[in-house]
Order: sequence, then structure tokens, then C-alpha cells
Amino acid sequence: MSRTISMSVVKRLPRYYRYLDVLLEHGAARISSKELSRLMDITASQIRQDLNNFGCFGQQGYGYNVEMLRNEIGRILGLNRIYKLVIIGAGHLGQALANNSRFTKRGFEFTGLFDIDPQLVGMEVSGLKVMHMDGLKPFLAEHETDIAVFTVPGENAQDVLDTIASSGVKGIWNFSNLDLKSSGDIKVQSVHLTDSLMTLSYMLNEK
Amino acid sequence: MSRTISMSVVKRLPRYYRYLDVLLEHGAARISSKELSRLMDITASQIRQDLNNFGCFGQQGYGYNVEMLRNEIGRILGLNRIYKLVIIGAGHLGQALANNSRFTKRGFEFTGLFDIDPQLVGMEVSGLKVMHMDGLKPFLAEHETDIAVFTVPGENAQDVLDTIASSGVKGIWNFSNLDLKSSGDIKVQSVHLTDSLMTLSYMLNEK
Repeated sequence: MSRTISMSVVKRLPRYYRYLDVLLEHGAARISSKELSRLMDITASQIRQDLNNFGCFGQQGYGYNVEMLRNEIGRILGLNRIYKLVIIGAGHLGQALANNSRFTKRGFEFTGLFDIDPQLVGMEVSGLKVMHMDGLKPFLAEHETDIAVFTVPGENAQDVLDTIASSGVKGIWNFSNLDLKSSGDIKVQSVHLTDSLMTLSYMLNEK
Repeated sequence: MSRTISMSVVKRLPRYYRYLDVLLEHGAARISSKELSRLMDITASQIRQDLNNFGCFGQQGYGYNVEMLRNEIGRILGLNRIYKLVIIGAGHLGQALANNSRFTKRGFEFTGLFDIDPQLVGMEVSGLKVMHMDGLKPFLAEHETDIAVFTVPGENAQDVLDTIASSGVKGIWNFSNLDLKSSGDIKVQSVHLTDSLMTLSYMLNEK
């Protein structure tokens, strides 16, 4: 890809991927921007514009080839390879993520689970034994790891960040309520659950 | 509030709330847009513009009163009341949400937990006994409920939606991979975890 895709388009790509994947599972071979528009609640012209961005042009009167389009979007999203993930924080949320087979299906493989709580260390979660945080640095030195999942409280997030710095980890999937900033070599994607819930409560009170 | 606040501003409000809350916990009485800008990585002019939207004007040379500003944003977000939530899907993610005290602290109270899995029904999670899905409709008829949390697989989400229709539930916090649409009386806020992870994998591959 020589062309740069704007972040607003990139943010819509996982959703396209998700819909195309379901369509493919249901045996759909092709889809028009109009049908996709109806399904996804995006205008057809927005869809055409988004997809043109990376050289996917639907054929007049035929539409898009679902499988090719899904694969192309998957390639842009980097889904054509396997990622190794460690989960830092083996509480309820960390366990829930480790147990979610949807991630594995997309190529995100959990290889380690860490905590400081002696009640959790040694416990088996989805085939992985929870390790003590003291073992994190040596683990990362031995096992190439792409992504660290932060399911620790915000007050511990900075310490964990310091621990994984220059460990070769390239990305952080952050569930702590601390905003972590992408630095040169580490990219951060945050999921702020409380923010999402507050947005919902706003919507409930909207006149 | 007579003025309408644009959704892009609303989406930033939980983040303002979160930062102000931490500042308040640390004893900060006031903050300038410049300091807040540095903390939050938003331009100071963006902050002033956002906050002016709902009549919060910082005083020249003094800044904003942290507590007043937090409370005002909380009021706009509807955090000045208690919400009752039921969790539908008592698997790992449902349990993780039920166990998260951060939500309760903000006024989101879990009152029921439902599942169809006989292995989960009867189990106690964070002081709540998991009930069978058959009991959901009667429960909602008896207990006023604001929000239903969907931690069910996408293929079951539509059924659950039909079950809670006209039950008085006003909002859905959706973790299923199905996009649910806000309809007239039910507002939906979705958290698509896999989408977020795919966005991260895109970022890791960005040149």
C-alpha cells in the first residue's frame, strides 16, 4: 500500500470486515454497495468512497466480490498473520479475554498471563498458567511478543509500561482507565469501558 | 440544557470527567485549559471550545474550578442518578463486568444476571445469583431496569432484543459482535472488542 488511509476510514474497516465475514459465512459471493449500505447503516456513496481508498472498485451491476473484499480489508488490517499476546492482569477481565475464542480465530494468540496476586498466580486459565509479574521481563526476553494486554488498574499501568519498555512489545491493548500514549515504537489502542457506559447514560437522558 | 451538544463533544465528555475526577482525588482545586491540555493531549483551544458548549467558562488567570466542572460534566452525562442494570450472558465477560466496582462507583448498579447455561444458573457472581433466561421477562416486569448489558454471542442478540422490547429497558450496552441499532425508545452503545483489536493490528503494521 503506497497510499495513506485516513484514521477515520481505518476505524471503519474492522466493521466492514465483520460484516463481510458474516456474509461469507452465509455463502454470499457478491454484494452491492447498496445492499451493504442497508446492512451497515452507512450511505452507499460513503461505502464506495471508503473502499475506493484502497483500490477496491465494485463492478457496475455486479457489486463487490465478498471474499476478495474481506481478504483485502483483512490484509490492510494486518490479519494475514499471527500475533502473540500476553495479558497483564489476570483478574476477571483478563480471564474473560483469555477465554474468548473470537480473538484466537482472528489470529490473536494468548501466550502468557501475568498477575501479582498470589491467589491468581498458578491458576489455569484457558490452558495458560498465570505467572507472577516478576517473570514478565524474562518471559518477554525469551518469547517474541507483539501485544501486551493491560487489564490492570490505572494506578499500576505506568509501572507495567516501564517493565515492557524495550522488551520488543509493539502494541498495547489498554483496558486500564489510564490513557496511555502511543510512543515511537509502541502503539496503544484503549478500551475505556466506563467512558462507554457514561456515553450510554448521556444518551438515556437526551431529550 | 437548552443547547444541543454535538455527539463529537459528548464523546469527549467521559474523558474530561475521568481526568477531572483524578485531579479532584489528588486535591486539585482548579486547573487551566493549558494544564488540562497538557494532561489530556487535546489543544487548549479545543478544551475551551468544548467546555464553552455547556456554559463552563474558565476565569482568566484562574482557570476552571475542578469540582464544579466535574460535577457539571457529570450532570450532563446523567451521572447524578442511579441506574439499574441487568447482565444478559453470565459467561466470563458478564462476570467480569458484574465484578467491576468502577461501574458501581459511578452509579451503575447490577441487579440481575441471566444465562441459559445450566452450569451457570444458580452460581453466585458478585453477590448476585445467576438466573435462567426464562425469568428475564418477569424480572423486568417487576424490577424497573434502565440498562440491559448484552454479553451474549451475536447470534443470540436479536432474540434477547425481542425479549426485552417493551419491557421498559431504555438502553443496551452491547458487547455482542452484532450491531444493534438504537430504536425509538431503546438507545444502544456498543463495545466491539474485536474491532478494537483489529485497529491495533492495523497500527502495528502501519509504515
